[in-house]
Amino acid sequence: MPKLRVHNFAISLDGFGAGPNQDLDNPLGAGGRQLHQWAFATATFHGTEGGETGIDDDFIKLGETNIGATVMGRNMFGPVRGPWNGSDWKGWWGDEPPYHHPVFVLTHHAHDPIVMEGGTTFHFVTDGHEAALERAFDAAGGADVRLGGGVATVREYLRLGLVDELHVAVVPVLLGRGERLFGDLGDALDRYERVEYVPSPAVAHMRLTRT
Amino acid sequence: MPKLRVHNFAISLDGFGAGPNQDLDNPLGAGGRQLHQWAFATATFHGTEGGETGIDDDFIKLGETNIGATVMGRNMFGPVRGPWNGSDWKGWWGDEPPYHHPVFVLTHHAHDPIVMEGGTTFHFVTDGHEAALERAFDAAGGADVRLGGGVATVREYLRLGLVDELHVAVVPVLLGRGERLFGDLGDALDRYERVEYVPSPAVAHMRLTRT
Repeated sequence: MPKLRVHNFAISLDGFGAGPNQDLDNPLGAGGRQLHQWAFATATFHGTEGGETGIDDDFIKLGETNIGATVMGRNMFGPVRGPWNGSDWKGWWGDEPPYHHPVFVLTHHAHDPIVMEGGTTFHFVTDGHEAALERAFDAAGGADVRLGGGVATVREYLRLGLVDELHVAVVPVLLGRGERLFGDLGDALDRYERVEYVPSPAVAHMRLTRT
Repeated sequence: MPKLRVHNFAISLDGFGAGPNQDLDNPLGAGGRQLHQWAFATATFHGTEGGETGIDDDFIKLGETNIGATVMGRNMFGPVRGPWNGSDWKGWWGDEPPYHHPVFVLTHHAHDPIVMEGGTTFHFVTDGHEAALERAFDAAGGADVRLGGGVATVREYLRLGLVDELHVAVVPVLLGRGERLFGDLGDALDRYERVEYVPSPAVAHMRLTRT
């Protein structure tokens, strides 16, 4: 069965997956960029221009493997809130986003699909988390679906019991405030077990799977 | 200046320093024992009977170094709640507790000091966190004071801005519920920086100091 997977999801020592006050200048929230320096440093992130190989890079690569579609929350797609009002926003990632497959964006406001270069098309789903996931599995054609984020979206899929694998990177920084990944989940985590713990010199990787 | 230090404070991946429903049978709360297996495995914890040396053991030893007194919350001392009512409870640690110095227990209910074997005396402080700390610094005679726990007590001293050093061990387990260390702290963590990150094969050690 194809899976819904979360990869390389960085949280601070104090549990936050994004800082507060996300906006155009701080898409990851205040201080949130610190959560991702370890990923930015990897060879995979650098592409052809250097970067580090090793544990972190291996985890970054794993997050790209056998993924046929991505689901993300609207705040991960962009800073526009409420109705689109003709916005020409096309994501944070430039003309050729790094997805190269269909991406399903959760929103309450309808929007035509946006076809980007390199195989990425953003589809906008207004009928909920389950519907978005169903469309993503269809589009993935037998491959897995990656749940990109952000924090609230991952939490909601955890609450719904729909996440099959969750890879978290605990980053040794304090944010002090922001969006907590493991909060308000009720009993949702009871169905998960930690199957891998691999610390790197930068972060502590932990992989959870649904039992 | 002598410092108030927290050492080897274990929290789960999801942020809990103790499980829920602490009682006589589960002093660390439901599931809480998992947080401390790494410490139980060390040579220092084992004493003369084996155990592992290495990173974890070094951190355990560091927690014993240059400590002249300990402060702890009442729930860490024992399971008795409310008035003592003549209870003969003398702590979880048997006739010779591993402190070997004065221990100041925060409580709302007066209790005579309890002199144990090996140099530990439990003193009961009813006039608050600052008073307990002041008495502990006096008793420590120039050495540092260790803040033992539990979670609520560490949080309160963090809120008061009185913790100088905080060493946390992030344990790759999920508890799902319990007492969260880094919660409801307001701006208290803004004064701290992470000065050390040392992962061991068992846990990720992070040391914070007040700036």
